[in-house]
Amino acid sequence: MIEIGRSKRALPVFGFDDIAIVPSRRTRGIEEVNLAWKLDALTFDFPMIAAPMDSTMSPQTVVAFGKLGGLGVLNLEGLWTRYSDPEPLLEQLAQLDDSVEATKFMQLIYAEPVKAELIEARLDEIRAAGVPVAGSLSPMNCVEFGSVVERAGVDFFVIRGSIVSAEHVSTVFEPLNLKEFIYNLDVPVIVGGCASYQNALHLMRTGAAGVLVGFGGGSSSRAHSVLGIEVPMASALADVAEARRDYLDESGGRYVNVIADGGLGTSGDIAKAIALGADAVMIGSPLAHAADAPGKGWHWGAEAWNPTLPRGERVRFEQLGTIEEIMLGPSVTPEGTMNLVGALRKALASTGYSDPKEFQRVEVVVHP
Amino acid sequence: MIEIGRSKRALPVFGFDDIAIVPSRRTRGIEEVNLAWKLDALTFDFPMIAAPMDSTMSPQTVVAFGKLGGLGVLNLEGLWTRYSDPEPLLEQLAQLDDSVEATKFMQLIYAEPVKAELIEARLDEIRAAGVPVAGSLSPMNCVEFGSVVERAGVDFFVIRGSIVSAEHVSTVFEPLNLKEFIYNLDVPVIVGGCASYQNALHLMRTGAAGVLVGFGGGSSSRAHSVLGIEVPMASALADVAEARRDYLDESGGRYVNVIADGGLGTSGDIAKAIALGADAVMIGSPLAHAADAPGKGWHWGAEAWNPTLPRGERVRFEQLGTIEEIMLGPSVTPEGTMNLVGALRKALASTGYSDPKEFQRVEVVVHP
Amino acid sequence: MIEIGRSKRALPVFGFDDIAIVPSRRTRGIEEVNLAWKLDALTFDFPMIAAPMDSTMSPQTVVAFGKLGGLGVLNLEGLWTRYSDPEPLLEQLAQLDDSVEATKFMQLIYAEPVKAELIEARLDEIRAAGVPVAGSLSPMNCVEFGSVVERAGVDFFVIRGSIVSAEHVSTVFEPLNLKEFIYNLDVPVIVGGCASYQNALHLMRTGAAGVLVGFGGGSSSRAHSVLGIEVPMASALADVAEARRDYLDESGGRYVNVIADGGLGTSGDIAKAIALGADAVMIGSPLAHAADAPGKGWHWGAEAWNPTLPRGERVRFEQLGTIEEIMLGPSVTPEGTMNLVGALRKALASTGYSDPKEFQRVEVVVHP
Amino acid sequence: MIEIGRSKRALPVFGFDDIAIVPSRRTRGIEEVNLAWKLDALTFDFPMIAAPMDSTMSPQTVVAFGKLGGLGVLNLEGLWTRYSDPEPLLEQLAQLDDSVEATKFMQLIYAEPVKAELIEARLDEIRAAGVPVAGSLSPMNCVEFGSVVERAGVDFFVIRGSIVSAEHVSTVFEPLNLKEFIYNLDVPVIVGGCASYQNALHLMRTGAAGVLVGFGGGSSSRAHSVLGIEVPMASALADVAEARRDYLDESGGRYVNVIADGGLGTSGDIAKAIALGADAVMIGSPLAHAADAPGKGWHWGAEAWNPTLPRGERVRFEQLGTIEEIMLGPSVTPEGTMNLVGALRKALASTGYSDPKEFQRVEVVVHP
Repeated sequence: MIEIGRSKRALPVFGFDDIAIVPSRRTRGIEEVNLAWKLDALTFDFPMIAAPMDSTMSPQTVVAFGKLGGLGVLNLEGLWTRYSDPEPLLEQLAQLDDSVEATKFMQLIYAEPVKAELIEARLDEIRAAGVPVAGSLSPMNCVEFGSVVERAGVDFFVIRGSIVSAEHVSTVFEPLNLKEFIYNLDVPVIVGGCASYQNALHLMRTGAAGVLVGFGGGSSSRAHSVLGIEVPMASALADVAEARRDYLDESGGRYVNVIADGGLGTSGDIAKAIALGADAVMIGSPLAHAADAPGKGWHWGAEAWNPTLPRGERVRFEQLGTIEEIMLGPSVTPEGTMNLVGALRKALASTGYSDPKEFQRVEVVVHP
Repeated sequence: MIEIGRSKRALPVFGFDDIAIVPSRRTRGIEEVNLAWKLDALTFDFPMIAAPMDSTMSPQTVVAFGKLGGLGVLNLEGLWTRYSDPEPLLEQLAQLDDSVEATKFMQLIYAEPVKAELIEARLDEIRAAGVPVAGSLSPMNCVEFGSVVERAGVDFFVIRGSIVSAEHVSTVFEPLNLKEFIYNLDVPVIVGGCASYQNALHLMRTGAAGVLVGFGGGSSSRAHSVLGIEVPMASALADVAEARRDYLDESGGRYVNVIADGGLGTSGDIAKAIALGADAVMIGSPLAHAADAPGKGWHWGAEAWNPTLPRGERVRFEQLGTIEEIMLGPSVTPEGTMNLVGALRKALASTGYSDPKEFQRVEVVVHP
Repeated sequence: MIEIGRSKRALPVFGFDDIAIVPSRRTRGIEEVNLAWKLDALTFDFPMIAAPMDSTMSPQTVVAFGKLGGLGVLNLEGLWTRYSDPEPLLEQLAQLDDSVEATKFMQLIYAEPVKAELIEARLDEIRAAGVPVAGSLSPMNCVEFGSVVERAGVDFFVIRGSIVSAEHVSTVFEPLNLKEFIYNLDVPVIVGGCASYQNALHLMRTGAAGVLVGFGGGSSSRAHSVLGIEVPMASALADVAEARRDYLDESGGRYVNVIADGGLGTSGDIAKAIALGADAVMIGSPLAHAADAPGKGWHWGAEAWNPTLPRGERVRFEQLGTIEEIMLGPSVTPEGTMNLVGALRKALASTGYSDPKEFQRVEVVVHP
Repeated sequence: MIEIGRSKRALPVFGFDDIAIVPSRRTRGIEEVNLAWKLDALTFDFPMIAAPMDSTMSPQTVVAFGKLGGLGVLNLEGLWTRYSDPEPLLEQLAQLDDSVEATKFMQLIYAEPVKAELIEARLDEIRAAGVPVAGSLSPMNCVEFGSVVERAGVDFFVIRGSIVSAEHVSTVFEPLNLKEFIYNLDVPVIVGGCASYQNALHLMRTGAAGVLVGFGGGSSSRAHSVLGIEVPMASALADVAEARRDYLDESGGRYVNVIADGGLGTSGDIAKAIALGADAVMIGSPLAHAADAPGKGWHWGAEAWNPTLPRGERVRFEQLGTIEEIMLGPSVTPEGTMNLVGALRKALASTGYSDPKEFQRVEVVVHP
């Protein structure tokens, strides 16, 4: 603990940029590395989930991502469930260069209500393609649309907000009882974000299959400027990984997946997330580099269109290749933004590890 | 304590940018948050005071700020009390782009003496609008104009300088005896800036209702370059909050408000100031973003026009909306410069706190 | 050890930029400094090896570097052993300004296989010039081309990869048994990179004459972005220097040279490398400043042309003078990029040391 | 001590930018501050020496600086003692914008030998103006020109090099015996630079009246890039101030002035230098802002024209006013580059101190 002043102490915390992975005394051929990731009943080729963001995940790209071997999640309260055809709006938005104008336009188009029938239609479309089906809602929409999602049928239900706690206090609106809600659902739930040991432990106790660590948004989030709130990802993950261990013991063997969500801009960040204890990562901005992403070179999260208090911004991304090239290569850039799966495999091989679970033990150093 | 070299030790200190607020295991609806702030006999809707700076507070904007529910303070030794109509000068100044030319022009126009009758007229104008009346003087002008202010009538008297101590030494000019001066006044006094436990404790003992922490000026101050003097705000607030606690005990129950004054550029900074122990904040630069601010897109403090040793500079600010939009929203930017009140409310709600006093206990982390 | 979060601790580490050399109470004339460096049977005028990189070392520049008194190493799996005349390709590459285009072009031209007869021809050409002969292979090419190199005859055999361990695991391809390979060679071997005490100690036990510390590439490497892997050079060298000491004891007197390889951009970095325990340095980017370097103002390492996962980039360098002027001066720039030998001599003289071995004990400070 | 790696430890050190001065609980009127500084038999109005650099000190500006109440030092091995009229060369140099061209031109014009008769003539010219006379030589020129200087007559003899030790080792050239040289001189000597307790203590034992702390050059020095050598000024001063105290005791009362020389770009830096233990400062770059400085908007030190290994560079400075305005104001900029004396006075007043000796005890904080 560091003393800020006579009346306040604080823990020093660290982000991905502050740490680096250290090779061990062994190396390994990349053919020796197994990246398969099991979540509930399904096994994926690599431990990466595509974040439910309108700039990267449309029904089409969810399918494309699933066919590559990963899990794509559709935002069930985004443009695809507010409009039967959001393409013209996405086109218009992509034409706006001014950030204030773009914010106002987003505040306008996201004011359109979410429609239950569109939720069902989008999920049907994904299921029809034969890939795993997952959709996300924020906690405040779970009461209204949760049963719609369940009825439509999903493999995974994602409850995702900037900061989600197991204990939301409100005397005016009836708050979502997470534990009850998850208990009554037939499908495994991934819930977050959270950023601390205590908060994560309480989310694990709701019965979730996975918790999202971080506040999402990453490069496009400005929660620090607007709210003063931030927990650098390296420390958040190392804390929540300890909650997983303690809950495993307390629950007599229930293993809850820790999923890093936020601040993952490069394949190097993805490797570090696992090195710090994540079982998988939820990626947003790397996919915004895909030429076939619906954002057409722009990336934004739900924070960016808050009607009265935007806490994120639309960010411009260079289009580097297809989603397949972003995920599986070949890469033509040394920025860590292409061949994410190949890079993770190489990171494990170079440091002598054979799978992500084992790689959670790799040595890291701090370079402040 | 850190050893700088064999003969000198120093405490490590921290600014707003070095720290961040951490969510707790609870969240709260924003409707559960109460921002009301009581200062002496009056209660304000939110704990924010508009700093007495010519670029942001004219009699008109003091009134506007008061009508929004806050406390606006007029600088009683600024252009409005030196000239019966300063508007043409403000217009001329806004036209000057070159910083040296602007400094020289300010040195010139601020050389005009302050007039007692204008002090009275300005305060009358504010009172007539039905909002709380507050005006500021620097310590060196209190002897000459203090009685004028008292006679004109104010709800709060602000004594504000870069660095104000309870013990000013001069063998040539008779120094202001703060304790005596405050004792003899009929109105509650806010006094500062100060930045350390000892200095704040001595200011509390003068009988002040509030102490200003920081040296004001914020983004426009260059005291570090010119004088080598600086105390980062996070550490200053955490020190002075301890002085408040000790003085509360020593005085048998007198609670002196700790008011952060300086370095508050965003709503995130405002949340952090309270997290570090402030009861309220005095804001300057956020209001310079208002289209109706008298600075017309420029912002400066009293340091900027010192006749022989300017220690601040005029800074350009983008005009984002009306004072009302800056304070109450809606915001159209993720920079933390609009909807300051809504952002503070959201910061408390997201971390599970219901009022600023309670929020002073929120956990913070250091990210160096 | 620093706590990153509840489940992870990390050592703080430091790079060249974080540290500085401190003068002692003595100074020395530059004529009192002896930079001679003995490696196995040969003695060089200064402890600097030219890194085997196509942008700096052609057969011609290997010879030029050797005639100046240093050891130049030819990359035996670069363009000179893939093509009988690579000059037109180098010319074409130098014309490409776009980095993605350049990466694709490099991926293309480096796909041409290495030819045994060209390895022999290039080494013959160097030997004919009467300078020490050294060539490098990556571990994966040692099995195929090691005997060719041995037959052709070299004074030093360099086995160089980004991360080389004494224990490479593969169940599919037969891994190189470093210990056996080195034992069977008739020539002294330099092997690396490595970056930790354990890894270096195991490499020393293979019988190598020298170990390369760092991952090479320096300014052009992006292993951090792509793989999350990095070990700042100052800490890496200080760790491996301890392995040298421990191995010296364990082996009953075998002194293995510690050679810094990576991140050496200036003569100041070279001095720091030795101050931290290096016996010699392997330099790349400083030579890319030479007008007669084959890269023609561009610099790249083997990471830059990886066919599926480039982990380095081609970097532009200003051409400052001939290789001789870069190494021996006179310098016409204060950037630390000319007269590298004179600068190292001056660094020792100014701090009162007479040779590199003694200079390993000089005091350094950390300036974070 | 911090562990860099297993075989090396290092002290953390701090520069002016890392620290800040903290107000005390007292303030003082500026009329209460006395900046007078006594050096041997003379008393100056303020504790600032103008550094012997050709870009700032000509015979004319030495005189101007002396008439303002400070001590100007002429470089006795610069252009004014190599040429009877260096003005055309200074004009030519000022026209060269390219830094490599400028370096080559300086290497050329400084190759002209120093002339004894010009040393005498320049010193005579200064003495004739009725101001204190001081000239500087580097250690290597003291043997040849020391007696010339003594014969010409000076009030202070400055021996100044980048790094000067009391124990210079050379078996080829006869090294200067500082102790003997100083003992035999009739005038008080200021000698440096040095940067550590041990080095400073040895210099104090030579009988010097003052030691220069730092390596000079400041903004124009690149010793870190070229040699890897640097000692941040805050730590250097705090170390040497302890040497002054210990030598005072050991010598039975000889007080050696500690003079900060290097890295002083602003009046804030000057205040910090004294706060860290300096008795006075030797300034270079602030005077390069003077319109009447001979560098005509450029600034350079002796390191910049080294014939084979330049370790400094010519830097462009904005011309802000006359030397008088730079030193005594009025200032029209908040950068800390005008009214240096007024700023130092204000720094002491604002923190409650009455003279520089007392100000050495002011509290400082570290803000990394």
